[in-house]
Amino acid sequence: MRILWVNPVGTPDHDAGIAALLRQTKSAETLAEVVSLVPGVVPEHLEYDSFEAMAVPEVVRLSRQASAEGWDAMIIGCFYDTAVTAAREVSGRMIVLGPCLAGLQTAAHLAARCSIIATRPKAAGHIARVVRGHGADHMVASIRTLDILTSDLVRDPGLTARRIEEEARAAVENDGAEAILLGCTLEHGAQDEIQDRIGVPVIDAVRAPFRMAEHLCGLAALGWSPGRIGAGLAPDDDELGMTGCFGAAAIGNRIEVR
Amino acid sequence: MRILWVNPVGTPDHDAGIAALLRQTKSAETLAEVVSLVPGVVPEHLEYDSFEAMAVPEVVRLSRQASAEGWDAMIIGCFYDTAVTAAREVSGRMIVLGPCLAGLQTAAHLAARCSIIATRPKAAGHIARVVRGHGADHMVASIRTLDILTSDLVRDPGLTARRIEEEARAAVENDGAEAILLGCTLEHGAQDEIQDRIGVPVIDAVRAPFRMAEHLCGLAALGWSPGRIGAGLAPDDDELGMTGCFGAAAIGNRIEVR
Amino acid sequence: MRILWVNPVGTPDHDAGIAALLRQTKSAETLAEVVSLVPGVVPEHLEYDSFEAMAVPEVVRLSRQASAEGWDAMIIGCFYDTAVTAAREVSGRMIVLGPCLAGLQTAAHLAARCSIIATRPKAAGHIARVVRGHGADHMVASIRTLDILTSDLVRDPGLTARRIEEEARAAVENDGAEAILLGCTLEHGAQDEIQDRIGVPVIDAVRAPFRMAEHLCGLAALGWSPGRIGAGLAPDDDELGMTGCFGAAAIGNRIEVR
Amino acid sequence: MRILWVNPVGTPDHDAGIAALLRQTKSAETLAEVVSLVPGVVPEHLEYDSFEAMAVPEVVRLSRQASAEGWDAMIIGCFYDTAVTAAREVSGRMIVLGPCLAGLQTAAHLAARCSIIATRPKAAGHIARVVRGHGADHMVASIRTLDILTSDLVRDPGLTARRIEEEARAAVENDGAEAILLGCTLEHGAQDEIQDRIGVPVIDAVRAPFRMAEHLCGLAALGWSPGRIGAGLAPDDDELGMTGCFGAAAIGNRIEVR
Amino acid sequence: MRILWVNPVGTPDHDAGIAALLRQTKSAETLAEVVSLVPGVVPEHLEYDSFEAMAVPEVVRLSRQASAEGWDAMIIGCFYDTAVTAAREVSGRMIVLGPCLAGLQTAAHLAARCSIIATRPKAAGHIARVVRGHGADHMVASIRTLDILTSDLVRDPGLTARRIEEEARAAVENDGAEAILLGCTLEHGAQDEIQDRIGVPVIDAVRAPFRMAEHLCGLAALGWSPGRIGAGLAPDDDELGMTGCFGAAAIGNRIEVR
Amino acid sequence: MRILWVNPVGTPDHDAGIAALLRQTKSAETLAEVVSLVPGVVPEHLEYDSFEAMAVPEVVRLSRQASAEGWDAMIIGCFYDTAVTAAREVSGRMIVLGPCLAGLQTAAHLAARCSIIATRPKAAGHIARVVRGHGADHMVASIRTLDILTSDLVRDPGLTARRIEEEARAAVENDGAEAILLGCTLEHGAQDEIQDRIGVPVIDAVRAPFRMAEHLCGLAALGWSPGRIGAGLAPDDDELGMTGCFGAAAIGNRIEVR
Repeated sequence: MRILWVNPVGTPDHDAGIAALLRQTKSAETLAEVVSLVPGVVPEHLEYDSFEAMAVPEVVRLSRQASAEGWDAMIIGCFYDTAVTAAREVSGRMIVLGPCLAGLQTAAHLAARCSIIATRPKAAGHIARVVRGHGADHMVASIRTLDILTSDLVRDPGLTARRIEEEARAAVENDGAEAILLGCTLEHGAQDEIQDRIGVPVIDAVRAPFRMAEHLCGLAALGWSPGRIGAGLAPDDDELGMTGCFGAAAIGNRIEVR
Repeated sequence: MRILWVNPVGTPDHDAGIAALLRQTKSAETLAEVVSLVPGVVPEHLEYDSFEAMAVPEVVRLSRQASAEGWDAMIIGCFYDTAVTAAREVSGRMIVLGPCLAGLQTAAHLAARCSIIATRPKAAGHIARVVRGHGADHMVASIRTLDILTSDLVRDPGLTARRIEEEARAAVENDGAEAILLGCTLEHGAQDEIQDRIGVPVIDAVRAPFRMAEHLCGLAALGWSPGRIGAGLAPDDDELGMTGCFGAAAIGNRIEVR
Repeated sequence: MRILWVNPVGTPDHDAGIAALLRQTKSAETLAEVVSLVPGVVPEHLEYDSFEAMAVPEVVRLSRQASAEGWDAMIIGCFYDTAVTAAREVSGRMIVLGPCLAGLQTAAHLAARCSIIATRPKAAGHIARVVRGHGADHMVASIRTLDILTSDLVRDPGLTARRIEEEARAAVENDGAEAILLGCTLEHGAQDEIQDRIGVPVIDAVRAPFRMAEHLCGLAALGWSPGRIGAGLAPDDDELGMTGCFGAAAIGNRIEVR
Repeated sequence: MRILWVNPVGTPDHDAGIAALLRQTKSAETLAEVVSLVPGVVPEHLEYDSFEAMAVPEVVRLSRQASAEGWDAMIIGCFYDTAVTAAREVSGRMIVLGPCLAGLQTAAHLAARCSIIATRPKAAGHIARVVRGHGADHMVASIRTLDILTSDLVRDPGLTARRIEEEARAAVENDGAEAILLGCTLEHGAQDEIQDRIGVPVIDAVRAPFRMAEHLCGLAALGWSPGRIGAGLAPDDDELGMTGCFGAAAIGNRIEVR
Repeated sequence: MRILWVNPVGTPDHDAGIAALLRQTKSAETLAEVVSLVPGVVPEHLEYDSFEAMAVPEVVRLSRQASAEGWDAMIIGCFYDTAVTAAREVSGRMIVLGPCLAGLQTAAHLAARCSIIATRPKAAGHIARVVRGHGADHMVASIRTLDILTSDLVRDPGLTARRIEEEARAAVENDGAEAILLGCTLEHGAQDEIQDRIGVPVIDAVRAPFRMAEHLCGLAALGWSPGRIGAGLAPDDDELGMTGCFGAAAIGNRIEVR
Repeated sequence: MRILWVNPVGTPDHDAGIAALLRQTKSAETLAEVVSLVPGVVPEHLEYDSFEAMAVPEVVRLSRQASAEGWDAMIIGCFYDTAVTAAREVSGRMIVLGPCLAGLQTAAHLAARCSIIATRPKAAGHIARVVRGHGADHMVASIRTLDILTSDLVRDPGLTARRIEEEARAAVENDGAEAILLGCTLEHGAQDEIQDRIGVPVIDAVRAPFRMAEHLCGLAALGWSPGRIGAGLAPDDDELGMTGCFGAAAIGNRIEVR
């Protein structure tokens, strides 16, 4: 199985961290690759809606390209599930998914209600819209915030872990959360310890979608690839080519994960 | 991985068919078992709500027992997701799931809207309630019916396949369905051919939850087992034992699937 | 009018208390009976989902049997409205109902929003799902908990009453409740005093469904018995008999209420 | 028990018909009265929103007055549940209700889904808003129309009955209705025969709220009168008197029903 | 453009204040008029539902009359959007609107979520129903209350302003509000200063609907006047005349605003 | 007032048509400009999600640039309301809006329910998601399709007009629509005639948002510019500059509209 993890940001800074986490997460036969995008084309983080916007066409181009290269799945590594619908449209038989839906689906088997730990109110508001779009309002007890900027999350991992634990505990004690969903792919690292200390599942935004991707890839053998009518109807190659807009995606960095 | 498939009906008639399908579906290292319940304790099908009711405690007892025996997951093989919440409560670290949620989650990655092919209006109404409970109204284009009684589905497989294809095609052409969800575990058999002829994914109610179960079992290594507070809070063993109600489940038949 | 109150638990401990309350509640011409189920078949309380599961087939069998014996209505005395849909299916012209829907319907005529006082978070979560299923989210201001185990409610009635009053008052003062719904049939006893002291209607989970049952029985004379198509379609007697599952319900105790 | 039925229209034409129906419907000890309003103050029917508007203050004044006169309940006899909230505000301990909520609540015990038979599209649209306000969208299979003007319903009872039967049958056969709710108080008369011929409960808009009123009146003995905080908070008598707006309601006709 | 502002209350006390505010708000070419209703026909404020009821027919009559007199729009100056639907029915090509919908629509362009500052819990509950009817639950962060009676708002403007600011600030800091909607037409006066100090848009309930009315009037030139089928179908003049209910509205006071 | 209309497509083909329509639509003092984007950067139409994706960053860059240049409002001329939230984030005090929300808001004052006429099922599905996001499900009677590709709409205007009329009429007659919303900015041209022939308001996707923009610009004088906290919080200029992603937008064509 070949799965492409996209850090849809214009910095290679987080690639090694994600790659290390995927190495511990993936099954032996999966070949993964972590890519990030080019600085100046896409910002270093996507917390702002305007920053996320810059990543949208790159992600779509990458999806088409990855599909052509024979990848089985591509994960768009932002909890906003950035451009998943558009990327899926031109992904042929490749699976495209994002952390928010994958996390919510995982949580649905483990708990009646979960809380999401977002970075800042900015992100929390955006996530609320994504959750509502997925029809999952009834299973989200609360969206809490760390009040740490996305790009600062990895600067002081101890602080990040401490704050996640504080908010997770508050979610369990006050909001009725029975599981925790980490609301940013950069909140990884201390998930295990926090989970042990709090005693409820803490689902992180990297492993959950990656494992879901492995699972979904396996379904291709049953013929379950994305439908290609209605929302899934793709422009034909001629039409798409004539736009001149679907050149190579601007990949800035690549790490193979074996 | 050890996964238990429960046909929550009081007949062994469908066990071999399901086992054969699982054999084609499971990954090599998974050990599965198909069990069905005892006639006279549980009816031969669960299409009626009153028939489903008979299966409820057996399914719960079986869940507890399976968890104690070390199964990694148990699938309750009825599209009503019969007693999943109650069974999950006493399942310790074992995963418990049903076909409806698993099918909807699978479809969510393949299409914007899907239609469910139920057996009869009776079942369609029940399924509508289950779908609404899962927050998935927005992704179900329609629930169509074969007007074939559950227990007759396997009697004339040709007719069943023909009717499924007719309704699936109508769902795609008239209702805006972009994928099809087979709404009964006994609608299996012709899924591949129908899928090929119609050209949209046809997700069956046996393979989809089984594969999802394999996937979820794999997550236990990350510590993602069912949460045990709130809805997941289980009675302690003393309290449970004192009820005298949690004896051995009435298993009527067993088939190992290797 | 003949109305059967079912304590769907495997203990006779609460029958006398409920019977006494019904005696004060019923109209002169109503003949009621309180029954409870057999220990070892059903647990002493249903707060856990797995405990409730044990009661499900008994309640359904009892419904069929009661209908055959000519009862006009049967009330399933658990605020989860346990198995009402399934029991109604085989109840012929008999009415079947539960406290949650009856209480919400009563409250709808008395207040814009009410709060439900549940026993523990466990029960609150379950009740939230039932309320959502009834389409009543908009009229429930909050679900508060006593943090007293169901089976302890009657042990120290003074404490129970005090806690109910505290939470009811908080619901009125902080949550915008204009009426209170007692969220367990065992929270009865002090309803009158609390109501007087708080100054809003406090609707209890025994009297409300009982009176509603008397009301609904009266409608049979207008031909308004449960519909028997769609969700209401019942298996025919042959089909039902052939299952061998619909023997006599395991009634453990009976008290006539005249 | 003393129950006031208000035909909130400026014509006495329907009073005798309603009174006759109530006579067959009420319990022996209930004393009922049918009143209608004054022509020129209120139109002859309320199908238009602007016509209904004229009835609003009269209904509210009548509610206050009826409460002062010691009536136990007042029914506002229009399926739009005209001014129920406002009338309830000044009704002291008297119960105020309308046919739509009462009908939906009755249907909820008899069927999973019902269809409403409205007079014309105009009314159907209005009723849809009322149903949505009651949180009952999930239980209404369809709102069908007779395409007969409200005031013509009683002119040719045979035609009305025939059309009701046609639409009711279509609702059952095509829309999944398991019960029928008559969507206008003037659709009465043939309910029994239609019900017999169609085989599902046909709930009429006169008897259902009347019986519900009798039921709710009975609850006053338990202290369950309308709450008087929040939405139920009433202006005090001084404040109300100073407005000069709460004079006698313009009652045009009265029929006692014993 | 000619726009009629209706203070649907039976006092001229607020007309001058509103007129002054409109003078600052309207575009040069708009001719506005502020009218209020007659004491003894309509109360001095509409905070109670029963008080609001008194205004309903007057507002509808006024709508018809204003339409006949050639007004381009009529604003019903109560945040409950009192009788807008009924008034619109008989308004011909005239636009009819209320502050709540206008305010919500304005806010939708300025912020993801806003909070409404109501007068008292009574009003807050009513407003919650109106918001839900407009499908705007997802954009209202909270409804907070001043705990000042409507008619007292203008008595101590300093206190009113101070309380508005306190609650607005709390809404921003605690509830996630990104804009404020003043929930009563009498909360005007200090909007500018509060807006400046708090730093988020504070949308008042007078200017917002007035400007929206000017905007909507301009659309008439494009042929966009109220639709006249379905909900918009009006009684024909004969039918309406025969009711005898649509005489002159009871206007108590008039102020021209040039 | 200075309003920028963006045709977010990589072709100047539709600019003159839109400009002509705006010339007839705008008020005398408004200065408008129609711009389109660069071929090869953005496709010729956005009907596919992947095509729309290409326009996203250009629209956002344009929004920031337009705000800096002192435009009062910018309209993103695609019925998907493409990137409105992201563009609004960096728009300072400038208003940003799209046709779908503007059209729904306009319709809300003219009719209880409207139907949207989309181009193809592809677009209809996308529009359904946008409508649901705006909380407007309850006011949309249906989304019908012309089955004409977006870019073909202007090729045979007679056919387009005929098809719009057919579907609009069907929406009114069968779906309960009381107004029509044209679901693509290129469906303009015949709106007036269709409106006259059908007799309900036909709201087009160019004029409606343009007029709404004029209206909203006028509100800036009241201090009602987009809020800048929560969802509206913008990256500061330093942070934004450092990304290197917010260079000049790729404007391909410009037409001034005076």
